[in-house]
Amino acid sequence: MAENIRELTVELGDRSYPILIGPGLLGEYDLSPYVTGSQVMIVTNETVAPLYLEQAIRCFPGKVVDSIVLPDGEKFKDWQTLNRIFDGLLEQRHTRKTTLVALGGGVVGDMTGFAAACYQRGVSFIQIPTTLLSQVDSSVGGKTGINHPLGKNMIGAFHQPRAVLIDTDSLRSLPPREVSAGLAEVIKYGLIRARDFLDWLEGAVDRLVALEPEALSEAIHRSCACKAEVVAKDEREGGLRAILNLGHTFGHAIEAFAGYGNWLHGEAVGTGMVMATDLSLREGMISSGDLERVVALVRRAGLPERPPAGMTPDDFMTRMAVDKKNVDGQLRLVLLKALGAAVVTADIRPENLAATLSAFCEDA
Amino acid sequence: MAENIRELTVELGDRSYPILIGPGLLGEYDLSPYVTGSQVMIVTNETVAPLYLEQAIRCFPGKVVDSIVLPDGEKFKDWQTLNRIFDGLLEQRHTRKTTLVALGGGVVGDMTGFAAACYQRGVSFIQIPTTLLSQVDSSVGGKTGINHPLGKNMIGAFHQPRAVLIDTDSLRSLPPREVSAGLAEVIKYGLIRARDFLDWLEGAVDRLVALEPEALSEAIHRSCACKAEVVAKDEREGGLRAILNLGHTFGHAIEAFAGYGNWLHGEAVGTGMVMATDLSLREGMISSGDLERVVALVRRAGLPERPPAGMTPDDFMTRMAVDKKNVDGQLRLVLLKALGAAVVTADIRPENLAATLSAFCEDA
Repeated sequence: MAENIRELTVELGDRSYPILIGPGLLGEYDLSPYVTGSQVMIVTNETVAPLYLEQAIRCFPGKVVDSIVLPDGEKFKDWQTLNRIFDGLLEQRHTRKTTLVALGGGVVGDMTGFAAACYQRGVSFIQIPTTLLSQVDSSVGGKTGINHPLGKNMIGAFHQPRAVLIDTDSLRSLPPREVSAGLAEVIKYGLIRARDFLDWLEGAVDRLVALEPEALSEAIHRSCACKAEVVAKDEREGGLRAILNLGHTFGHAIEAFAGYGNWLHGEAVGTGMVMATDLSLREGMISSGDLERVVALVRRAGLPERPPAGMTPDDFMTRMAVDKKNVDGQLRLVLLKALGAAVVTADIRPENLAATLSAFCEDA
Repeated sequence: MAENIRELTVELGDRSYPILIGPGLLGEYDLSPYVTGSQVMIVTNETVAPLYLEQAIRCFPGKVVDSIVLPDGEKFKDWQTLNRIFDGLLEQRHTRKTTLVALGGGVVGDMTGFAAACYQRGVSFIQIPTTLLSQVDSSVGGKTGINHPLGKNMIGAFHQPRAVLIDTDSLRSLPPREVSAGLAEVIKYGLIRARDFLDWLEGAVDRLVALEPEALSEAIHRSCACKAEVVAKDEREGGLRAILNLGHTFGHAIEAFAGYGNWLHGEAVGTGMVMATDLSLREGMISSGDLERVVALVRRAGLPERPPAGMTPDDFMTRMAVDKKNVDGQLRLVLLKALGAAVVTADIRPENLAATLSAFCEDA
């Protein structure tokens, strides 16, 4: 097993932590060195628990391991479900030396991380992401939180894990739709920061959709390395980190319009990246050939290219007005100044934004 | 006005902040230098708003100031009420550059601070405490949070304010019972760390109960200085800071038994300090004369010396078992090794703890 492990470090001084990537890690890798005290609470959901909970427990030899199984789905990323984690921790008398473990996708990771940030004003936690999306994105970087009816991820904290364990074998149980959703974030890294990775992806995307292990492992490693680098430079999104939000402002509006969980986050980001690329073209930053490449890659990854039927430009504008990147009421977006190079800007011509929204909203 | 301001600094590197103490500051002192962007959201409650909200708004010239008025009371220190702050922020489109302002007592301060810690993963906040208890204790140090049915302050964050403004005139509107509650924490500082201040308090307590301005100003200044020093040395309660919890483990059990809000926090701490002192005597750490001095001071401050009728040793033990100071299930308490010198210890003879609980529980 050991020779197949790829290890990265998220460099954050005394809060640095490893990302361990490889096949067969669940149930084999000893995570107890990353546990603070004697207590461990694994938080997972009803889909993941039957598949991986027993294996995850075996990663903590010599510890007292409890578990909480939440309902599955983005619509449960709310206070009520979060409170079930607090209930379980208090009922089982977990102290401030406990370590929480997120076993599952992005929703489980975000909620468990936020519970760890808030329980007794902060305890340790470990990420074991089991979906492609969470492996390449949300498990790394310390963003945690829950949704509010008026906005996604509006309530949360920056709280870094002690370790991230990525077992690539866990992707075998992933539905094709979720594989595509994960690929949206993989494509994003190529678009914002790594032209050579983007070129590689155009050749590898069919193998990724088919879950070819070597291709997946390479894509996860490159994606995590890119994210780790950005997070190390700007942990709390003072500047650079915002480029990780390419496609997310449009995407969040789509998710909110569709009702959280009806569109997968990655699907919304896929469409959002196409829209951001379209706007970049209208702003004169890239060529129409660049846009065509992005559309083709998003399509081959199995992602939607257009927002849901019935969504209007107004539906976008209302929801984008509450985006966290906005400053003093002014909309800010991540655009592409070239393939492989992103920029965060508030300097957008309103008529160009209106044109992009009109072009993508069929009823407009 | 300016010549009457006493200023202290909580030394936390680039997160250091001032505590400004004096009469007539509300409505006069310009706090806009401590505001991040152009938006300010003042959070207060229905008791404080008619008295001080207009004055507080005048502290932010040139800013866009909104306000949220919460119901008054510890029983509202819960998620549901916290969510009203998030609702208001989102409805008024406050961005991550907004600044929250807590105007009121400890409940308003803890909830507003926690809302600031979580809103869009963290925004700035300012404390304007209007009760003696919050002025000498909860407004300084960055502890924020809400209660859970299974434990007080179990959900929260460390989130430091940008400034603390203490207008001593605001104590004129405080009911005598709340003045006494505040004095519990004032006495605590003398007991844990400042023998000379304790000596001063024994001479000044009657003037403090009578709200004599000069005595109050001195007591607040000494208390804040003590707290600022402890927080600067141990921001996240890795060690020293735990001594600030003298009387609080017993006190939290009393509050939970009585139902949050029926006993004021300071009242419970008053009784808790007497119990901790009694246990310190049984552990052979202090003399019976020391205990008598503490009992007399607590009594003269107008605080209860005994837990509520009907509370049993078991009621204490069950609730103390979930205290945040506990490590791996072992009870830890703050005791006195002398008047003016506290120690945090798990090395307590069970029969001594049982004897203290029996002595204070009338039905035992």
